[in-house]
Amino acid sequence: MARLDLSDHDRDALGHAALGWVLKYFAEAASGPVYPSVSADDLRAMVAEPLPREAQDPAVVFEQFVRLAMLGRNNGHPRMFGYVQSSGNFAGVIGDFLASALNQNVTSWRSAPAATTIELQVIDWLKALVGFDPLAGGMLVSGGSAANLAALAVALRVSTDLDLNGRGVSALPAPPAVYASARAHLSIPKAASLLGIGRDAMQWIPVDGAGRMDVRRLADAIARGASDGHHQICVVANAGDVNTGAVDPIDDIADVCESRGLWLHVDGSYGGFAAAAPRVASLFQGLDRADSISLDPHKWLFSPLDVGCLLVRHASGLHRAFAQAADYIDVVADRDMSDFAFWDVSPELSRRFRALKIWFALKCHGASAVLETIDANIAMAEHLAAAIDGRDDFERLAPAPLSIVCFRYVPAALRGREAALNDLNRELMVAVQRDGNAYLSNAMLGSSFALRACIVNHRTTVSDIEMLLDTIERLGTALCASRS
Amino acid sequence: MARLDLSDHDRDALGHAALGWVLKYFAEAASGPVYPSVSADDLRAMVAEPLPREAQDPAVVFEQFVRLAMLGRNNGHPRMFGYVQSSGNFAGVIGDFLASALNQNVTSWRSAPAATTIELQVIDWLKALVGFDPLAGGMLVSGGSAANLAALAVALRVSTDLDLNGRGVSALPAPPAVYASARAHLSIPKAASLLGIGRDAMQWIPVDGAGRMDVRRLADAIARGASDGHHQICVVANAGDVNTGAVDPIDDIADVCESRGLWLHVDGSYGGFAAAAPRVASLFQGLDRADSISLDPHKWLFSPLDVGCLLVRHASGLHRAFAQAADYIDVVADRDMSDFAFWDVSPELSRRFRALKIWFALKCHGASAVLETIDANIAMAEHLAAAIDGRDDFERLAPAPLSIVCFRYVPAALRGREAALNDLNRELMVAVQRDGNAYLSNAMLGSSFALRACIVNHRTTVSDIEMLLDTIERLGTALCASRS
Repeated sequence: MARLDLSDHDRDALGHAALGWVLKYFAEAASGPVYPSVSADDLRAMVAEPLPREAQDPAVVFEQFVRLAMLGRNNGHPRMFGYVQSSGNFAGVIGDFLASALNQNVTSWRSAPAATTIELQVIDWLKALVGFDPLAGGMLVSGGSAANLAALAVALRVSTDLDLNGRGVSALPAPPAVYASARAHLSIPKAASLLGIGRDAMQWIPVDGAGRMDVRRLADAIARGASDGHHQICVVANAGDVNTGAVDPIDDIADVCESRGLWLHVDGSYGGFAAAAPRVASLFQGLDRADSISLDPHKWLFSPLDVGCLLVRHASGLHRAFAQAADYIDVVADRDMSDFAFWDVSPELSRRFRALKIWFALKCHGASAVLETIDANIAMAEHLAAAIDGRDDFERLAPAPLSIVCFRYVPAALRGREAALNDLNRELMVAVQRDGNAYLSNAMLGSSFALRACIVNHRTTVSDIEMLLDTIERLGTALCASRS
Repeated sequence: MARLDLSDHDRDALGHAALGWVLKYFAEAASGPVYPSVSADDLRAMVAEPLPREAQDPAVVFEQFVRLAMLGRNNGHPRMFGYVQSSGNFAGVIGDFLASALNQNVTSWRSAPAATTIELQVIDWLKALVGFDPLAGGMLVSGGSAANLAALAVALRVSTDLDLNGRGVSALPAPPAVYASARAHLSIPKAASLLGIGRDAMQWIPVDGAGRMDVRRLADAIARGASDGHHQICVVANAGDVNTGAVDPIDDIADVCESRGLWLHVDGSYGGFAAAAPRVASLFQGLDRADSISLDPHKWLFSPLDVGCLLVRHASGLHRAFAQAADYIDVVADRDMSDFAFWDVSPELSRRFRALKIWFALKCHGASAVLETIDANIAMAEHLAAAIDGRDDFERLAPAPLSIVCFRYVPAALRGREAALNDLNRELMVAVQRDGNAYLSNAMLGSSFALRACIVNHRTTVSDIEMLLDTIERLGTALCASRS
């Protein structure tokens, strides 16, 4: 037996222990605290050990894992409302498990025939799900940041006939400009930095009262940029900003981009999959006119981490950015499938078989169940917004078009005192997190500190929404009492 | 029950079906063909279906998976010798399975306390394993391409006091230059392209007869670059080139870098973990003097895909490249651990819990078993090289210092006829792949097409090496017969 093979007995025992734990974890996902009570020092003491030179008993290692596992945040919990953290799903976990065992390196058809075929099928499904061009190209990456980085890399290269891959961005004839909503995700300026055009290339377009990009200001900025001689690369629109869920007026933005010959990238990392949810589909009009779209199946498709996706209407753009061969072929459809290589269309070479978890989940549950769940999440947000609007001691701070609600606790004594309200709500957020009954994160809206609840969880029900508000009220009352 | 929860019964059934399949897959890893016999059209027909709108029976979905799974390459097979594809390991698969179920988003300590602590522990172990600075910073990414991209991003930003993140690389005072071995991995020029400095910034340093960077030529190139007024960014050395396994003379290169004040990045994606393998450790002298090192645990640490690692001696460089806050803090050690965020030191925001598979495998097997396995892989390569040298109808085309052997089949009739030998060996490689008994890939060495065997598999034994040569001889003889 090879040194790195466990015995049949140990494999069987470790495998069953792990499966038993996972089944229990899913059966109990809706119970227990959302967040653990542990200090960084205590955790470090539990984990710290020198490089293990010799083998440890797998059963003992597993027991150590079990103790540590409970010191993570329970992201499947129905009252996990922080960030854009989805609940995952069991069918996806099984797909991921099988992907790890199969250990396919999805670099190309020749290296991973079945996995490559399944990935291309899954990308076709994602296009169908959001109503994007069936002939678009696409690939799976680690998440929205990677997808947005790749999107900007493509838009930059398509913006000029110059060989930027060879000559670098200094070859651009003029200072570059990327137009984005002032609410764009931080991965957009980070991408501008990494790609060498620099964060200063970002032209921030103000948003209206509902957090949507002001299209008139966009058109003005582009006209000004053109007359100033900027090299204009693209417009980045939000399909679900991560602060409030605002969806930019994509159709109107597409009009501007079309008239100016500018690439339109839509960052749908959070909200993209809601484009087909009956309750909000109309918000996404024009999505099919985008040149590229970022989507995060590990967000509102409830896949386990990690999997992001970039779709590009004309696949040749992916080749422009990522193919390294001098004489690459621009059109994937012209190539024999067995010659297909993801390294020509993607920043990665080695690639995990990320598609299998999506394949399993979409088949076992059906897209209808996903869309109904997205719709239900939005309904829960509407319920939360209405409940906040109906209570005197809460104040909503932004429209809630998707599944994010931004609000604050406003006890009568502090009404109108902005600084004090910010302090109180900052403390309150931490108190809620430590309490363990629910988990909130925050957003800064103007100068106001907002408690922010984001619902991308298939287990959240109305009673969880009620419990969230009760928890905040209980802790808020206590905080105020301790201060007075 | 939520629409995206399977019933307890279905979870139990699907989980046990999957575990049973994985246990069988591992029990039979050493048997069966390495590569399937299937056409792209047949596979497409098996996979193709419109977006599944409604739920399918999980048992039926699983059966479809089982049929498709056998149409992938069996990368754990002891005669899988293609590319740098490791065999994976079961303990790692279990770690990955639990990571998918836990679904931690390892963005920061606050979001994933236990997972963050485990990842930092695993990075400490990787530093210890290759003898790198214990105070170095590091993070896990999707693989070598991502690690090399991040490394060049860091070296570029550390190379100047200018705010490149803000101003872009056009702010550089002179044309950039990156010095790399002519054998550098294609991810290096791809990174130069993506980062905006352009592939033309690459200065290729010739290698000697053993494929090692010529240090005198490097020193000359740097001196010339300095007098030509280039903005010199870094030197990229190979610690195991993926063509032949050549290890550049790192210590001598470090001398040059030190005297010139240049960043030294060592690409150890393939070979880095061999630095502690007794049989070859001396080749890696000077590795501890590098400013950054890329390592791929999914290669010679036998982890399931994906996981790469970038180590950076002075962690502040990671902040320079990746922290987006204006007033970021340079030294991680000065920060309270509960404030630690990977987004300050890494290109990603959402991050899979990649560390858990390494944690499980290193504990269950011990680093000694990993190093012994690496040593055994190298011994197998030495055996293969010696066997080739001992046969008249084979010719070795390069030294084999690590676990890669480049060679060709040379029947007496074709001796000395280069073009004909290239044609024959190209056909032979495909014939070996289709035969299914072993899997080889290739390298171009000068103008010679080489069959290339890379051994990063804990199951490969001497009899597999013998079978490889027998298979090649059998197919080579048949090919020659069919041509005459």
